[in-house]
Amino acid sequence: MKNLVSLGLRHENQKLFILDQTLLPHKEQWIECHTPLEMIALIQRLAVRGAPLIGVAASVALARFAENGATSEQVLEAAHALRAARPTAVNLMHAIDEVALNSRDLSVQGIVQRTEALFDEDVSLCHEMAELGSGLISDGDHILTHCNAGALATVGAGTALGVITRAHEKGKKIHVYVDETRPLLQGARLTVWELQRAGVPCTLICDNMAGFLMQRGKIHKIFVGADRIARNGDAANKIGTYSVAVLAKAHQVPFYVVAPHTTIDLKCENGSEIPIEQRDSQEVRTDKAPLDCNVTNPAFDVTPAHYITGIITTRSGDSEKYSAMVWAPGGKPLANSF
Amino acid sequence: MKNLVSLGLRHENQKLFILDQTLLPHKEQWIECHTPLEMIALIQRLAVRGAPLIGVAASVALARFAENGATSEQVLEAAHALRAARPTAVNLMHAIDEVALNSRDLSVQGIVQRTEALFDEDVSLCHEMAELGSGLISDGDHILTHCNAGALATVGAGTALGVITRAHEKGKKIHVYVDETRPLLQGARLTVWELQRAGVPCTLICDNMAGFLMQRGKIHKIFVGADRIARNGDAANKIGTYSVAVLAKAHQVPFYVVAPHTTIDLKCENGSEIPIEQRDSQEVRTDKAPLDCNVTNPAFDVTPAHYITGIITTRSGDSEKYSAMVWAPGGKPLANSF
Repeated sequence: MKNLVSLGLRHENQKLFILDQTLLPHKEQWIECHTPLEMIALIQRLAVRGAPLIGVAASVALARFAENGATSEQVLEAAHALRAARPTAVNLMHAIDEVALNSRDLSVQGIVQRTEALFDEDVSLCHEMAELGSGLISDGDHILTHCNAGALATVGAGTALGVITRAHEKGKKIHVYVDETRPLLQGARLTVWELQRAGVPCTLICDNMAGFLMQRGKIHKIFVGADRIARNGDAANKIGTYSVAVLAKAHQVPFYVVAPHTTIDLKCENGSEIPIEQRDSQEVRTDKAPLDCNVTNPAFDVTPAHYITGIITTRSGDSEKYSAMVWAPGGKPLANSF
Repeated sequence: MKNLVSLGLRHENQKLFILDQTLLPHKEQWIECHTPLEMIALIQRLAVRGAPLIGVAASVALARFAENGATSEQVLEAAHALRAARPTAVNLMHAIDEVALNSRDLSVQGIVQRTEALFDEDVSLCHEMAELGSGLISDGDHILTHCNAGALATVGAGTALGVITRAHEKGKKIHVYVDETRPLLQGARLTVWELQRAGVPCTLICDNMAGFLMQRGKIHKIFVGADRIARNGDAANKIGTYSVAVLAKAHQVPFYVVAPHTTIDLKCENGSEIPIEQRDSQEVRTDKAPLDCNVTNPAFDVTPAHYITGIITTRSGDSEKYSAMVWAPGGKPLANSF
């Protein structure tokens, strides 16, 4: 397999390394991933996270497994296990289906080729969405984002954060407010780190401050990623996104979701069918709350389509290339031919 | 001065001790407070917090200062400094005005008497509000609260949490969802601790999960405290309260504020006149975010009156005693005679 390099994943000289995102921003530690089982563990403990990145990383681990001599049966078994590593983000399922489970060709060459294509496609999809989406951002805009939908969440420039950084690159003067995103602080740890690297002015806030800023007119637009989008436009994303959407509507702030077509689940009629992962209570308690207290810890929520101003996504064009589009769902189902 | 004992403050044998609330729930450490200056430091670093408690604690420190031989000039100087220790909660200003600055009698006896009366009054106000407010809670209710408006925030049973625990004592089967309340986690550290002590079933959540629970119909009523209420009913409370109120309205969940008349600022026409304290950036960054990142850290926000279903508060009755009432402000100013 060829070398594949992104901000959070490096496949070089037939070795796969993962940037451990749980240690950012204070430590940049790369972990070698030798097997699909190791990749599952990395995905489950969020060393690898972000819907598009999870899909690509799982595929690369599977392709390496094939290249290292696994039989077709072993590849299929590993594919099923990888596919089930986390339940909400559909990119993982789509990627594994594409690379292995929906294919009649389980040759090493076939798996490798489809994995390389998947990687290159994600880079290209991010680029297309960033180009189109950045056109929605005006000079002087103050933008809110939630969680991390950046280069760390994809193998390209990112989804929501790709749009934002592209606007900055185009010379637009913007300021980004970053929800810290409890419990795991992907905003505070990852998004601030990425924005600082890109030189984009930003301010970190607690999740519960976004409403206050909107009330004072300090937020002009909101861009977030997605982990799964239903046919009617309902979008699952990191817990807290739904609250941001409700606040946005109450303050008439445009609320955009940015996610490639690989995040859209056409089999899913609406958001009620999207499974919501419950994670460990200790993530919420940390070392502060009483050790034995009850906790609920849903990792995602679903924003109904009617809260979404537009979904910046991708569709296939004439030449088998995907181009970006803005879909204003309003609860209207996307055609199956999409 | 007589002995005065509450969950977070003990005046015993002419010594004043404060339970350091920054160390709860894992450590219950009492700190002796010798001077008004020490009290100011305790208030500013939130060892003492909660609008009613701050007012009483500052007054007790002032009365001890007088009993220990301070001159009238020294008492007045200390009173002004205590009054300015924190800007948002008006109970502090009201208490110090009552005990010292608005009085012609600065005799030790006068100061002590008014301080003792202030303490006893807060206990009684909490009791009255809890009795009345608990009538608004039905068997089977799931209740959301934000921050800590409990016995730790007053010298009585608490405001919002006093209402909730009283409903439990009356035998109503309730469940309380507790917003952790970033950045300082008063919900996770203090409210959960209090509810566990009182045997009230509760579940800790991150602030950004409240909307998700409301969307799923899991929250039936919301009770929060306040730090200052304007004449038109706009209510300042811990940052994040406003977002909860907007979410409550979107989901048609009743939203109640519980605060005694000492929290109402009749000089304040509406919420725009309430000063919002900005606190240190490091509270938000903790050890997770990049060390040098920009932060905004407003400690409070203001919920407009039209988001508030009712304010459970107190008013003077026939016999100079205060009784509880429910005020549905809807933006209508309270009379000055209140």
